[in-house]
Amino acid sequence: MILILRPAVTPAEFKTILDRLEALGVSVHHAKGAERSVLTLGGDQEMLLSSQLEALPGVDRLVETRKPYKLASRDFRDEKTTFKVGKSKLGGKKVLVMAGPCSVESREQCYLIGDAVAKAGATVFRGGAFKPRTSPYSFQGLGKEGLEILAEVRERTGLAIITEVMDTRDVELVAQYADILQIGARNVQNFSLLNEVGKTRVPVFLKRGMMSTIQELLMSAEYIMSNGNENVMLCERGIRTFDTALRNTLDLSAVPLLQSLTHLPVIVDPSHGVGDWRFVAPMARAGVAAGADGLMIEVHHSPETAFSDGVQSLKPRRFAEVMAEMRKIARAVGRTL
Amino acid sequence: MILILRPAVTPAEFKTILDRLEALGVSVHHAKGAERSVLTLGGDQEMLLSSQLEALPGVDRLVETRKPYKLASRDFRDEKTTFKVGKSKLGGKKVLVMAGPCSVESREQCYLIGDAVAKAGATVFRGGAFKPRTSPYSFQGLGKEGLEILAEVRERTGLAIITEVMDTRDVELVAQYADILQIGARNVQNFSLLNEVGKTRVPVFLKRGMMSTIQELLMSAEYIMSNGNENVMLCERGIRTFDTALRNTLDLSAVPLLQSLTHLPVIVDPSHGVGDWRFVAPMARAGVAAGADGLMIEVHHSPETAFSDGVQSLKPRRFAEVMAEMRKIARAVGRTL
Amino acid sequence: MILILRPAVTPAEFKTILDRLEALGVSVHHAKGAERSVLTLGGDQEMLLSSQLEALPGVDRLVETRKPYKLASRDFRDEKTTFKVGKSKLGGKKVLVMAGPCSVESREQCYLIGDAVAKAGATVFRGGAFKPRTSPYSFQGLGKEGLEILAEVRERTGLAIITEVMDTRDVELVAQYADILQIGARNVQNFSLLNEVGKTRVPVFLKRGMMSTIQELLMSAEYIMSNGNENVMLCERGIRTFDTALRNTLDLSAVPLLQSLTHLPVIVDPSHGVGDWRFVAPMARAGVAAGADGLMIEVHHSPETAFSDGVQSLKPRRFAEVMAEMRKIARAVGRTL
Amino acid sequence: MILILRPAVTPAEFKTILDRLEALGVSVHHAKGAERSVLTLGGDQEMLLSSQLEALPGVDRLVETRKPYKLASRDFRDEKTTFKVGKSKLGGKKVLVMAGPCSVESREQCYLIGDAVAKAGATVFRGGAFKPRTSPYSFQGLGKEGLEILAEVRERTGLAIITEVMDTRDVELVAQYADILQIGARNVQNFSLLNEVGKTRVPVFLKRGMMSTIQELLMSAEYIMSNGNENVMLCERGIRTFDTALRNTLDLSAVPLLQSLTHLPVIVDPSHGVGDWRFVAPMARAGVAAGADGLMIEVHHSPETAFSDGVQSLKPRRFAEVMAEMRKIARAVGRTL
Repeated sequence: MILILRPAVTPAEFKTILDRLEALGVSVHHAKGAERSVLTLGGDQEMLLSSQLEALPGVDRLVETRKPYKLASRDFRDEKTTFKVGKSKLGGKKVLVMAGPCSVESREQCYLIGDAVAKAGATVFRGGAFKPRTSPYSFQGLGKEGLEILAEVRERTGLAIITEVMDTRDVELVAQYADILQIGARNVQNFSLLNEVGKTRVPVFLKRGMMSTIQELLMSAEYIMSNGNENVMLCERGIRTFDTALRNTLDLSAVPLLQSLTHLPVIVDPSHGVGDWRFVAPMARAGVAAGADGLMIEVHHSPETAFSDGVQSLKPRRFAEVMAEMRKIARAVGRTL
Repeated sequence: MILILRPAVTPAEFKTILDRLEALGVSVHHAKGAERSVLTLGGDQEMLLSSQLEALPGVDRLVETRKPYKLASRDFRDEKTTFKVGKSKLGGKKVLVMAGPCSVESREQCYLIGDAVAKAGATVFRGGAFKPRTSPYSFQGLGKEGLEILAEVRERTGLAIITEVMDTRDVELVAQYADILQIGARNVQNFSLLNEVGKTRVPVFLKRGMMSTIQELLMSAEYIMSNGNENVMLCERGIRTFDTALRNTLDLSAVPLLQSLTHLPVIVDPSHGVGDWRFVAPMARAGVAAGADGLMIEVHHSPETAFSDGVQSLKPRRFAEVMAEMRKIARAVGRTL
Repeated sequence: MILILRPAVTPAEFKTILDRLEALGVSVHHAKGAERSVLTLGGDQEMLLSSQLEALPGVDRLVETRKPYKLASRDFRDEKTTFKVGKSKLGGKKVLVMAGPCSVESREQCYLIGDAVAKAGATVFRGGAFKPRTSPYSFQGLGKEGLEILAEVRERTGLAIITEVMDTRDVELVAQYADILQIGARNVQNFSLLNEVGKTRVPVFLKRGMMSTIQELLMSAEYIMSNGNENVMLCERGIRTFDTALRNTLDLSAVPLLQSLTHLPVIVDPSHGVGDWRFVAPMARAGVAAGADGLMIEVHHSPETAFSDGVQSLKPRRFAEVMAEMRKIARAVGRTL
Repeated sequence: MILILRPAVTPAEFKTILDRLEALGVSVHHAKGAERSVLTLGGDQEMLLSSQLEALPGVDRLVETRKPYKLASRDFRDEKTTFKVGKSKLGGKKVLVMAGPCSVESREQCYLIGDAVAKAGATVFRGGAFKPRTSPYSFQGLGKEGLEILAEVRERTGLAIITEVMDTRDVELVAQYADILQIGARNVQNFSLLNEVGKTRVPVFLKRGMMSTIQELLMSAEYIMSNGNENVMLCERGIRTFDTALRNTLDLSAVPLLQSLTHLPVIVDPSHGVGDWRFVAPMARAGVAAGADGLMIEVHHSPETAFSDGVQSLKPRRFAEVMAEMRKIARAVGRTL
């Protein structure tokens, strides 16, 4: 850590700063420039970060030289993390596709869509049983009944199952059914929930929040991992910006940036990213070209009567075409799909 | 609701749209312009909103004519909501001040700060026992012990107590101690938690998320109110924008805007809003001038050794001065403080 | 246009609104819902938009049913615009690449880089002679001397030349040298400059501003086109968001979105988009996969001694590799490069 | 400046970095931490900033210890800048008010509004003769005729005149009429225009761009000042954020923040900040409470027939009330208005 002092720091302030650092047991290296002093500090980063040094008179700011995440960092483990998802391995050469409806609506709906996405080559079936909805008056999901339908789809199609968990009290229940636990964008800093899924050994799919910085996303992954569950995948699903022409702004540069910072697999969700089925295909292709390890895509056989997210869902036939398009891009970047 | 059709809608698409609307039991008024058709729809708004009409071919977009929140709306109740907080009434002529440290650190700390803010004229004592921290390695709060300290401060000073609850499983416990339950910015769309505090009858202090639109904030209030707890106050605490010169961008225009849309009291938190104690006083004054019903201000006797948020905390003496400055502004806008 | 009235509109307000519309010569279709009235208006859109109808008491808001841009719109011309750039055609099957240094620094520098990018397959050479710099103390460009060097590079390599113009007074001069006039992101709403380049017949490369909405970008194109110059290409170069991990957030979804709204060619600039050479390659590939008609990439033989933008510049050898990678993606989406 | 090296820097990279710094004539102080090296550099800041040191292999990042603006900085001149505007002094105890219509529409309109704002206590009359409009089809201003009307208003009322200049070629003309030259938000980084108004000796009113950071705004002021014109005032007029409930997000914390960084006067424009006349009064009061040196407020006698910005304009009677409200706040913070 580096502590930059103000040009106008007084000798008394300077002494107070040094006394405080000594009390904290920090080693100090002092560089006196023409204009101001800079202190390079050695010592435990967490302790320094939480020591409120910037509140000391005479201090301008504290500059971090290390990333605050550890387990999630490439410095901790340089080799890419891989883990089995259903019959495939995530994080390897193969780009995995997770597909299905926004909400689990009925057995028939899930069978129909599950069969279609399995046939088109998806590895994982997605569907929400517990739904985070902006309005308390919107459909909130089928709950346990939805989980059971998902288990039947797995039985029937061989696809692995991903579904969202929203409440610490539901983690145990959902973990009994799901192959992957999804943490939604709105819960990315629900630290109680992160801790709870971290105590399971079920892989976790962590969605970036609409306004999560890359570092905050990695710190949320760190919450899960510090509880012992290291099978975490990160999902870019669009951030919120000034431009409202589309539902979100899909930040594809997060893919190579995350891959340079962490060993965890990175997934792209173009459906939420653009919020309009017409633009899902180009952004799915772009996601593969940018190096994503997986994609999550919403599919519905009847978007105009879906319970949620109809506008951004692909019909099964279009989904199969997008799979073919993505496969060509995967080959062009030396991967399979 | 208004359904705007595309200029190129085909007769077949048009028929499908009308059939679908008929099936939904919606009354339709058709206005045919030179360039495109517009359908004015009558019927239940929730049902229409969740009917995925925008997924129908030929539909351009659905324009809402009504706000999706009901209980929180001025249309539902025009008279301003007031409720007792400690010995004072929130939402009336008096501007209430909630003050205290970011975290409950110790009995001594809370006694010292509690005495000081009570003497300066605050109505509510704030302090976090459960702390949402970006890093799993940072101080996470004293938990139940912190709640007990808070209760002692109430006993000692007569101040009401506000503290944050982060987990559905803790709501019952925290509600036994707190006069006001705080929902933090990161949990503003933790719908399980909103439902749970909505089931209590303890007033709820709902912080706007860093990325919440005004409408989303009101929808989160609606979650709480639809569970039967109508004593909700809304807090503007700074949003996240492109400018990182300060910790957040305090959106003071949210105060009059919210007051035009909802009957709920509106609080301003300049401490989190600016994140730097030097700018808390001007923004606290501005908050009162903009019409806030209350303020939340972080106070610490020793900011440079605080466990969290030292940089943005006022020392007790400076806090007393800021109280005097705000009091003058309150008088200038016909209120007291 | 649709005029949505407030639920509480009074008969007197309603009459005033109708009188005003009549005075404007607008046809009015009135739909009276259970809760509020909606007026569908026929008449000139520009006139309606500038008529301040939203300032009338009783009016809630005006909803546009038509896009405010005309010449730039797909409704005006559905067929994709193509035009010759150097020896190639922009907007067709071939994806064009524009490459070169941020600033024209010297004859030697431009010869070296020009030769390299020509050999690697670029179509256009880029280089700034007039530089918009945040600081008045930074290098401001070689001016006319730089333009002459660019002309020599064209002579030598056969590449077309693109360079920025910043001042209405320089348009005539720059137009004498450049094959394409670049309007930088900071000048995207410098309407005087847009008008001036619109009066030339030189193709214009219009960069999206850091905070331009898609509609504002198209309106800026409309300024140029309404002056008679219809050879405009649009460039996505990264927008400004809350996340500062990279220089900008490259909004690749703007590519298919723009292509659905306008017939103008769309270019991606991954160099400014990410601001870090390490992430230029994946985003260049993703840009091609998303359907871009061209790419602009910064190349410098000695990034660490460049006058500007060294951190985001590729060395010539790496640029040649990126060309090969993009070529594979182009083939995968049925194009050439 | 501080150069932070990567943990994995090689000895060869390290030598190259030191050689480069030596070649630049920079003094280097090396602090070797447990994990990484930090170099504190002495030497000309501009030169270091433009030296592309971050492009050197082994370098993590360059941390600035000094602000890049000089003339605008409190470090350069600690005493607040004041200058005469009409009959009053800006930057002193008195808070100045600039008021008038968005556009100069006619002599009658300007006489009417000018008389009203003068009577209510404004110091400066505003009105646009050259209008930056998003659409080329909107009213673009009366040009020279508008300037002449403004001069007549000055003659008639004694108010000083502020009006916008958009084109380098118009600076000389506008400077003959205006007491203050306005640079609009869209031209905040039109560096040619900044240079040109910097060559006059007419005070400049510089609006923050929708996307300007505080530092960029100060760098734009620096452009003007470095040309010799030090009479610059800065205007916060709302920034663009994710929330579109209002036209912009008025960033009032910019007022005390700017005042801590620069000696230049700071103005608040609540009309553009909120874009809705209903919220202008509370934000005008809040601006005074936050410490603004002046306010700019749009006033129109007939907002519903204005040529532009009708929705955000106050009628003269309401403006007089707002003046009275602001005067009370000014007194409460020890100022006059």
